[in-house]
Amino acid sequence: MKIGYIGLGLMGAPIVRNMLKAGFTVVVHNRSRAIVDQLASEGATVANSAREVAAQVDVVFTNLPDSPDVEQVVLGKDGIIEGAHPGLIYVDNSTIKPETARHIAAELRKVSVGALDAAVSGGQVGAINGQLVIMVGGEQADFDSVTPIFKAIGKSWVLVGSAGAGQIAKACNQIMVGAQMAAMGELMVLAAKGGVDPFKVVEAIKGGAAQCWTLDNKPERLRQGNRAPGFKAYMQLKDLNIVLDTAAAYGVELPLSEAAQSLFEAMVAAGDGELDNAAVLSVLEARAGVHVGP
Amino acid sequence: MKIGYIGLGLMGAPIVRNMLKAGFTVVVHNRSRAIVDQLASEGATVANSAREVAAQVDVVFTNLPDSPDVEQVVLGKDGIIEGAHPGLIYVDNSTIKPETARHIAAELRKVSVGALDAAVSGGQVGAINGQLVIMVGGEQADFDSVTPIFKAIGKSWVLVGSAGAGQIAKACNQIMVGAQMAAMGELMVLAAKGGVDPFKVVEAIKGGAAQCWTLDNKPERLRQGNRAPGFKAYMQLKDLNIVLDTAAAYGVELPLSEAAQSLFEAMVAAGDGELDNAAVLSVLEARAGVHVGP
Repeated sequence: MKIGYIGLGLMGAPIVRNMLKAGFTVVVHNRSRAIVDQLASEGATVANSAREVAAQVDVVFTNLPDSPDVEQVVLGKDGIIEGAHPGLIYVDNSTIKPETARHIAAELRKVSVGALDAAVSGGQVGAINGQLVIMVGGEQADFDSVTPIFKAIGKSWVLVGSAGAGQIAKACNQIMVGAQMAAMGELMVLAAKGGVDPFKVVEAIKGGAAQCWTLDNKPERLRQGNRAPGFKAYMQLKDLNIVLDTAAAYGVELPLSEAAQSLFEAMVAAGDGELDNAAVLSVLEARAGVHVGP
Repeated sequence: MKIGYIGLGLMGAPIVRNMLKAGFTVVVHNRSRAIVDQLASEGATVANSAREVAAQVDVVFTNLPDSPDVEQVVLGKDGIIEGAHPGLIYVDNSTIKPETARHIAAELRKVSVGALDAAVSGGQVGAINGQLVIMVGGEQADFDSVTPIFKAIGKSWVLVGSAGAGQIAKACNQIMVGAQMAAMGELMVLAAKGGVDPFKVVEAIKGGAAQCWTLDNKPERLRQGNRAPGFKAYMQLKDLNIVLDTAAAYGVELPLSEAAQSLFEAMVAAGDGELDNAAVLSVLEARAGVHVGP
């Protein structure tokens, strides 16, 4: 099975490395050239456009920042749709609006191309270790066809429903992640203002009903004064915006997610959007006049 | 070591059973009598007041609903303080305001009684299985003295800081638990309105960065249509009120916890306070016009 991969950022590049490691032929394309040359030196084949990638592979992936980027690369000039051929399957690892994923799937169906929205969770570490969690929307037959590829890059892959369902699952994922990050910030700032060591509090509570990925993985970095990403705060905000746009479209009220969105908005407005999403506590620290960590 | 235990509710009674099982002599007292008789038949000794309990034991515990109850039983008429004797240690398993815990510790110190605020997490299941997480505030020597008892009822016990620190840690715990419960409700309702099976979504996301105790433990009950407690919603609201009162006292803004508090307020106002805290999604279901589960 010949794979194409378009979008070689923090996530895309390590995903391609795991595909190469598993023995797949991978044709890559990316706007900026440095990472393309790097992956070529590691065994990838290079193409000059999304169209060229699509024309020569069985399965073509994208991993791009936002909905308009994906729409352009798939449906725009020199896009995947121009390289479409019967039997081609399109897989999107980006996090975008469910409605965009559904629109793209519908357009590709017209030219006999299958589409899976296959959003991922697990961050750069998960991408590097081939331990991503993959949330998929689309048809069962397409899902079954690409399962050998998911095995090379992930630790779990679930077909959640039809087109768009993978992006809805990713939005759901980001509701929980955003809530955990904001709640960790709130509890650490409350502890610090209450004269109690926030890291002792985490040690005390992380084995009980408060247990979560965020408390397991983030406090140690904060204790060391390390607020570098990880997963960038402005991307968390972008994802929470997708959550709330989608919720508005469906007529769902999400007051907790709105509160998390406001915190990330304040963080990005303060110029901290390039920091880790766990650093959202900085907004609460500034308001309370306290600092967590060294 | 002879133990006293006052407050034999959903948590207190199974905790006493584990103390008995570990071979401790336990003197019990409770406002309602049925559970006292039951525990007496299982080996506990009965006393007629908190004062009588305190007078005859080395370590006296309380496990009561709210701050005024604890204050009354410790410092009020026929209270623990009236049965005080040198060397007595007082341990509170309730969830109350940190400032109340500090006040009680200060009053008991005047009569040479040590005090530990030792709030617990893990719910009734954790109490029954002796797997509680215990968050402790107080002095190291008192903590060391009662460690053999913590071993009989818990799986972890951390001295977080001085008097009140255990209650601050519990407030921190409830920030995270409240956020997880509300976020799970938001994501399940969004999925359902988006035409996607909420339980498939949970299956897809629970192994990634969204992983948490709540997603691990609560969805299966909701899938079966079981919204019985567990941990009652009105107690979660009481705890979130402690969180926000404490935050206000320290000048800390907690917007996410405020959003969670509002949801639990709406749930209790709708008459659902006796249901499980995970059933808080009912508020969002009603607003969105959708139902999760059978």
